[in-house]
Amino acid sequence: MLPDWISLDCAAPSESHRQAAMARQAQLTKPLGALGRLEEVAVELAALQATDYPGADRAPVVLFAGDHGIAAQGVSAYPPEVTVQMLRNFAGGGAAIAVLARHLNCPLEVVDVGTLASDAVPGVVADKTRRGTRDFSVAQALTPEEVAFACDAGRRALARQADHQPQLVIFGEMGIGNTTSAAAIAAALLSCAPVDIVGSGTGLDADGRAKKAAVIVAALARHGLTSDAAVADILAAVGGFEIIAMAGAMIAAAQRRWPVLVDGFIVSVAALAAVRLNPSCRTWLLFSHRSAERGHALVLDALGAHPLIDLDLRLGEASGAATALPIIRLACALHNGMATFAEAAVSGRDA
Amino acid sequence: MLPDWISLDCAAPSESHRQAAMARQAQLTKPLGALGRLEEVAVELAALQATDYPGADRAPVVLFAGDHGIAAQGVSAYPPEVTVQMLRNFAGGGAAIAVLARHLNCPLEVVDVGTLASDAVPGVVADKTRRGTRDFSVAQALTPEEVAFACDAGRRALARQADHQPQLVIFGEMGIGNTTSAAAIAAALLSCAPVDIVGSGTGLDADGRAKKAAVIVAALARHGLTSDAAVADILAAVGGFEIIAMAGAMIAAAQRRWPVLVDGFIVSVAALAAVRLNPSCRTWLLFSHRSAERGHALVLDALGAHPLIDLDLRLGEASGAATALPIIRLACALHNGMATFAEAAVSGRDA
Repeated sequence: MLPDWISLDCAAPSESHRQAAMARQAQLTKPLGALGRLEEVAVELAALQATDYPGADRAPVVLFAGDHGIAAQGVSAYPPEVTVQMLRNFAGGGAAIAVLARHLNCPLEVVDVGTLASDAVPGVVADKTRRGTRDFSVAQALTPEEVAFACDAGRRALARQADHQPQLVIFGEMGIGNTTSAAAIAAALLSCAPVDIVGSGTGLDADGRAKKAAVIVAALARHGLTSDAAVADILAAVGGFEIIAMAGAMIAAAQRRWPVLVDGFIVSVAALAAVRLNPSCRTWLLFSHRSAERGHALVLDALGAHPLIDLDLRLGEASGAATALPIIRLACALHNGMATFAEAAVSGRDA
Repeated sequence: MLPDWISLDCAAPSESHRQAAMARQAQLTKPLGALGRLEEVAVELAALQATDYPGADRAPVVLFAGDHGIAAQGVSAYPPEVTVQMLRNFAGGGAAIAVLARHLNCPLEVVDVGTLASDAVPGVVADKTRRGTRDFSVAQALTPEEVAFACDAGRRALARQADHQPQLVIFGEMGIGNTTSAAAIAAALLSCAPVDIVGSGTGLDADGRAKKAAVIVAALARHGLTSDAAVADILAAVGGFEIIAMAGAMIAAAQRRWPVLVDGFIVSVAALAAVRLNPSCRTWLLFSHRSAERGHALVLDALGAHPLIDLDLRLGEASGAATALPIIRLACALHNGMATFAEAAVSGRDA
């Protein structure tokens, strides 16, 4: 039911390049470990990119947008038409991720993988089989064929980035109602109570969050999503086009040996689904930020992830990953550009 | 005994620009607050810079270096000659801050305000009255005149940055032994036990830290630095040229209405001294990172500071501030460049 390529093994990072990078860090003119996480990131990228000169200059951003039938249940502070309005704002350069991508010199591709838009939006790639998911409080959100389509759409989007020769790829999402879908997927994958996962999304208050959690509890029961449910069944029952596309894109990226910089809550849920579908992709995922959205901490823990920054972000759109990107670039610049003790004629410790 | 200018009042930020910036944040195409700390930083800079378009593109880095007589007591993992060797590495472009400044397009000025160097180092500004401080375990580190000289040297360095038209200034430090001086200053200013402040510096183990704390305990007793000691007396007894120069430079920056992005433990101790000497400078200080150096948390708490990043950095050299700078630049880019709901024709919440 899922495409065959989903389960193909991803390669392991290069241990020889990891060792070489660690040896170099020990020779740079600083106490070993004094650059903390910056040293770790540079070493990890060197291993993933199988290079002595890790880099993140070429980091395309792919933003997947989709709409959600569950929005009819009043689970968002914003109306569904905002998804399509925001498509125009992404393409027009006024949205947060558009500003960030421009400032960071990252190519930005926006993919409509299942929004309610009936007409083409200039500057947006349309790759969809249906306008929005079904309301998962009353039906399966997606058919198995639609789940497979979304996986393939993610892989197609990834393949279109090849011309940029990515050193790293970033995925983002937009879709009114998608924190509800993501929370439902996470609750099912982690077998935890929706109330522990559900957050404010675009701005719900406590009553709104309680209602959102109740909608998810009822849906998980309705669809019979017990703790042993198959990932593909969970995605069909309560998933979303853009979330599944990101999971597919992550696996496809890992299969190409392209590291992925994971954004916030929704992208992390896609990452969790990807890792459950194909555990060998986990090592290719780097985590950018800890979101203010409630469920993110649980999902990060389940992935064993330690994000770089924690700035109370909860926008989505890959905005957290983009904000962390300069730190990765600086980590690489330091790794590649600092002098060694020998080069600089600086004495080592206890000399 | 301190220069008269130290106590001159710093201006208040512009409340009208703060209000305008907050109003703009509420109109940008995102849920209000969804960009978390990035929104706060942009609003704060708008108020400090008294502008509708906050920015941090022009952010010169000034690095102050000095040597410490206390290094003779074996309080550092590195020998004292490293300070002067690193001066050449800063000027030569191989040190961490040199790489970061180049990558970030920040002008970098290195000031020898009291190292052991007997000859001029090409590319380094020498502004010193003495080579290194006295060993504060057996004598006053500095005379009152030397403390005043260091304050003035900080102000002179700050004044030299005017040609860059700074939107923000960053100070950093280098000096073998200076975490010991900084910990002694902090213990005296905060009336806390040295063992709660002392960290590993460039890489001490537990025994080394215990010895370092004992050296400070004995010195505070020897110099009679009880909880009511004057800041100037503390600085003379256990201070260092580069730490005092940074405190002076921070006050001078605030008096010019230039915001300061504060680096890690040692720069934060200089900030604490500056705020004790002239409380009106506090509002001009932004805090970049939480260092792995043990005492930093206590000093940040005393300053009511909430740094942007926490990446286990403990190098000094302004490397943490430089690493956080891109986040501030992105916050400004978002504030200035995002579309409003009206401009993008996007529906507001609960529409």
